[in-house]
Amino acid sequence: MDTVRIALAQINVRVGDIRGNLKKILRYIRSAKDLGVDVLAFPELTITGYPPEDLLLKPKFIQDSVHAIDEIRKATAGITVVVGYPDQDNGHLYNAAAILHNKELIDVYRKHYLPNYGVFDEERYFKSGQRAPVYRLGKFIFGVNICEDIWYPGDPTRKQSIVGDAQVIINISSSPYYSSKVASREQMLVKRAKTYSAVIAFCNLVGGQDELVFDGHSVVVGERGEILVRAGGFKEELLVTDINIKSVLRSRKQDLKRKKDLKEYKKRAEVIVIKDRKAWRHEKSAVKSKVTEFFSVEEEILNALVLGTKDYVSKNGFKKVVIGLSGGIDSALVAAVAVQALGKQNVVGISMPSKFSSRGSVTDSEKLSVNLGIELIKIPIAKAYNSYINMLSDTFTDTKEDITEENLQARIRGNILMAASNKFGWLVLTTGNKSEMSVGYCTIYGDMAGGFAVIKDVPKTMVFRLSLFINEYKGKEIIPKSILEKPPSAELRPDQLDTDSLPPYDILDPILKAYVEDDLSAAEIVALGYTERLVKRVVGMVDQNEYKRRQGPPGIKITARAFGKDRRFPITNLYRG
Amino acid sequence: MDTVRIALAQINVRVGDIRGNLKKILRYIRSAKDLGVDVLAFPELTITGYPPEDLLLKPKFIQDSVHAIDEIRKATAGITVVVGYPDQDNGHLYNAAAILHNKELIDVYRKHYLPNYGVFDEERYFKSGQRAPVYRLGKFIFGVNICEDIWYPGDPTRKQSIVGDAQVIINISSSPYYSSKVASREQMLVKRAKTYSAVIAFCNLVGGQDELVFDGHSVVVGERGEILVRAGGFKEELLVTDINIKSVLRSRKQDLKRKKDLKEYKKRAEVIVIKDRKAWRHEKSAVKSKVTEFFSVEEEILNALVLGTKDYVSKNGFKKVVIGLSGGIDSALVAAVAVQALGKQNVVGISMPSKFSSRGSVTDSEKLSVNLGIELIKIPIAKAYNSYINMLSDTFTDTKEDITEENLQARIRGNILMAASNKFGWLVLTTGNKSEMSVGYCTIYGDMAGGFAVIKDVPKTMVFRLSLFINEYKGKEIIPKSILEKPPSAELRPDQLDTDSLPPYDILDPILKAYVEDDLSAAEIVALGYTERLVKRVVGMVDQNEYKRRQGPPGIKITARAFGKDRRFPITNLYRG
Repeated sequence: MDTVRIALAQINVRVGDIRGNLKKILRYIRSAKDLGVDVLAFPELTITGYPPEDLLLKPKFIQDSVHAIDEIRKATAGITVVVGYPDQDNGHLYNAAAILHNKELIDVYRKHYLPNYGVFDEERYFKSGQRAPVYRLGKFIFGVNICEDIWYPGDPTRKQSIVGDAQVIINISSSPYYSSKVASREQMLVKRAKTYSAVIAFCNLVGGQDELVFDGHSVVVGERGEILVRAGGFKEELLVTDINIKSVLRSRKQDLKRKKDLKEYKKRAEVIVIKDRKAWRHEKSAVKSKVTEFFSVEEEILNALVLGTKDYVSKNGFKKVVIGLSGGIDSALVAAVAVQALGKQNVVGISMPSKFSSRGSVTDSEKLSVNLGIELIKIPIAKAYNSYINMLSDTFTDTKEDITEENLQARIRGNILMAASNKFGWLVLTTGNKSEMSVGYCTIYGDMAGGFAVIKDVPKTMVFRLSLFINEYKGKEIIPKSILEKPPSAELRPDQLDTDSLPPYDILDPILKAYVEDDLSAAEIVALGYTERLVKRVVGMVDQNEYKRRQGPPGIKITARAFGKDRRFPITNLYRG
Repeated sequence: MDTVRIALAQINVRVGDIRGNLKKILRYIRSAKDLGVDVLAFPELTITGYPPEDLLLKPKFIQDSVHAIDEIRKATAGITVVVGYPDQDNGHLYNAAAILHNKELIDVYRKHYLPNYGVFDEERYFKSGQRAPVYRLGKFIFGVNICEDIWYPGDPTRKQSIVGDAQVIINISSSPYYSSKVASREQMLVKRAKTYSAVIAFCNLVGGQDELVFDGHSVVVGERGEILVRAGGFKEELLVTDINIKSVLRSRKQDLKRKKDLKEYKKRAEVIVIKDRKAWRHEKSAVKSKVTEFFSVEEEILNALVLGTKDYVSKNGFKKVVIGLSGGIDSALVAAVAVQALGKQNVVGISMPSKFSSRGSVTDSEKLSVNLGIELIKIPIAKAYNSYINMLSDTFTDTKEDITEENLQARIRGNILMAASNKFGWLVLTTGNKSEMSVGYCTIYGDMAGGFAVIKDVPKTMVFRLSLFINEYKGKEIIPKSILEKPPSAELRPDQLDTDSLPPYDILDPILKAYVEDDLSAAEIVALGYTERLVKRVVGMVDQNEYKRRQGPPGIKITARAFGKDRRFPITNLYRG
């Protein structure tokens, strides 16, 4: 038999839940054994969840993680397991993978490349590893590396596959999602496979963790770049496939570049023999996972929002959520996402009309609630509003109505949602989109008040696309047509429209992308074809509203650069550029 | 003449304000020239302010910074200037110092050690430098390095002073403050000076930037470890001193370790000759700064709070602040700090009693306001409270009074303060202390609502110490005795006391320090002599309230580990340990 059975456990773990994660890992090891799997891999830092952040600075947390790895070791009779954990040695911490076999710790691989950009802070915790060994199970040779390691051409992947002659490179990852990353990441893997004539087995984490969603999409790429199997996105899966070693070796014979590469190396590879003779199981019933198709852009983003919401709510111990329904498209989309994530019985809408609310603000919310099958509570805010105006009348003598009164309405609504949250234990979902969050078109402690900001990284134009997609996908009107068609408005003063204060969203959103995601200067954005006055106003609003964003709830990253730890700007910042 | 005149410009710059910072730098160069200074140094990243964070990712921002350095170059006729800026080369960014002399760019030194822990993220932006040259001005030889570089024994300081024979090491820093750091930092500098028989000229930034305060305390340490001159803390200063080169060389002859060290080096130092012959000015009137004394702990922390508040308010374009005065010690201390920072005419107090407020809550606030000379506005909150209870009565049918009603009161107060802020352009200062923030004994969108949290890193026991100190220092009752003596209470339900929910602060604070600042596990804290039940409850509260802290306003770091970017914890975190 020249076939080895490999499985990738694309699992959803919980940060800090070492016991719970251990249990899940042991369950997957049992399932893999039942399927006759030879080598089973888990994602990066499986045992701690990713990213564990400053938990890694707690000595007890590291000890507990290492203990858990020892528990896993005991469960590896007759199977090889690769599992991610924080490894401590000589006062240094490493982002590591334990290679376990037959109740023995065979080796510890330590990540070479530590990402320290975007949402990543790995240099804060870890030291880089240097070794790039390969492991031999009879004729089968494989290398292990971790996430970022495979994003760079060259070592450790090159060393493992060229000098070490590994037929398979197992890369364990916790690679967070953003739109357009999924396909490009796989293309990178295809390139690596072809370059080194090696099978790449990429095992990714799945699940939501605060602002991040890990999308899964684990994949095994054949040595000629063909996709052998691919796991689904945004769900747990045990991805299983059989690798024919002889076929890999045959491909290599045709690879002329390989000999040249081999010569360039001075040093020999470090080979760790796990088992000398044919080490894997002989009898296997046919089991093979399929190549799950990628989602469309809209479905992919929706899936990310649904999983991110579901996991934030459940991992933080909540069951039900409450949403202020304004009759607008943002709150409608958030409610639809929440229903998909948590079930209609766990979503409550509250409509809080004021004297400036259009008739549609209530009737459209009613229609939406009926379509979604959720409870709707109605609480008009006039009484509280009037009492504030009355209480403040002395202090505000001789002043004019301005944004103060608009914000008061938003804050009364925030208070009502938080009161419901406190009284019933519901988590408040906020409904602000990325366009609003960028320019500060939102009220701090008002509509920004809540535990989780589902669409805070979704530009308004994408809010429309996602809403249309939901209706299309479901084949019926979930988000009422009247909501889709009304011009956006905050309804905080008579006949107010978003376009009173902002350019139309199809103009605003590209400017915001250029400035926030692509770091273009104002002058460079003007050169794209916008007026200087408009660009300066927009980038000024972005700069001046950092203070608001800093106090907003976390929300799901779906773009290449989200607000939050992905974009770290000073609040006190005099630069305008 | 064997005397060289060195000056350290301990200046307060503004992040992102390249034009403004440039102007200030040019002004200091003129002053230094007037004083016959030979070598003038400015702090780390002077031109951008520190930390510029993700502004460093904007290509235009780097270009603008480099242009400003070129402007400075033109102003260096007859003087040598060392100034910090972000240097770009071959696609990499460096935390650098320009060495300028007589309108020429002599060299660029690049920081070796990039801090990437605590509040620091320098690996996110910069690549490490490798060179450690020295500069020669006739007989005078000096080395330049940057902040973290001198915190490690060895190179670059060793190389520069031993092999390069530099008599003076100029270290330019932006070293943020926390209590107890000031003296220990200087002790480290003294150690370096003695180890290498070199004069250490440490130029530190001063000023507040979001959560950080840079304390100044620039110092010149003689080659035998004696303090030659020391700048004051928390204020701008041009620190000037004359260094006698012969005296340094004499000390070195007595340094036996030096020869041994020199032998260990294989490579020669890189020597850059700025000017071959005696290069510095001959005629100098006697000018020498003094050795300013350190502050006491209380005075030092108060100074940090005052400067941090003053700079946050003014650098963000505000003039006046508003504070909710509860009659408690926290708001009293914040008001006193604000008055010292901004002047009494720029501080407004608002007293917002409810039916649960003690009589003292108003009268003590009145007394405080009179003592401080600030305006006090009174707005009872009963009307708004009753209207909420009325609006929510249907929804809350058959429920009991609980924390919901308490939070409502706090949120009404938050709304009133924000309304005043919106109407009059006042910044709201919040009054929560570190003990409360740690355990979540505060209301999100309520007493946490505001722009700047002055004492968020000050433990309650220190709040008392600081308040007592103010009265002592001023020699009169600023914070009324009745406020100092009443037992802490949130006054959100009848006869409520903090001790109903929390242990006494003199027990709570050490537990919090052990857990939050020292990363001790619960078991290790119990071993310090607290009951397991209490410790588990306290650390559980800390863990579970990360979500609140994440939405709080920034505040001044005064301890070794503050909440904020100094302590990066996941919100979704199942670890209890």
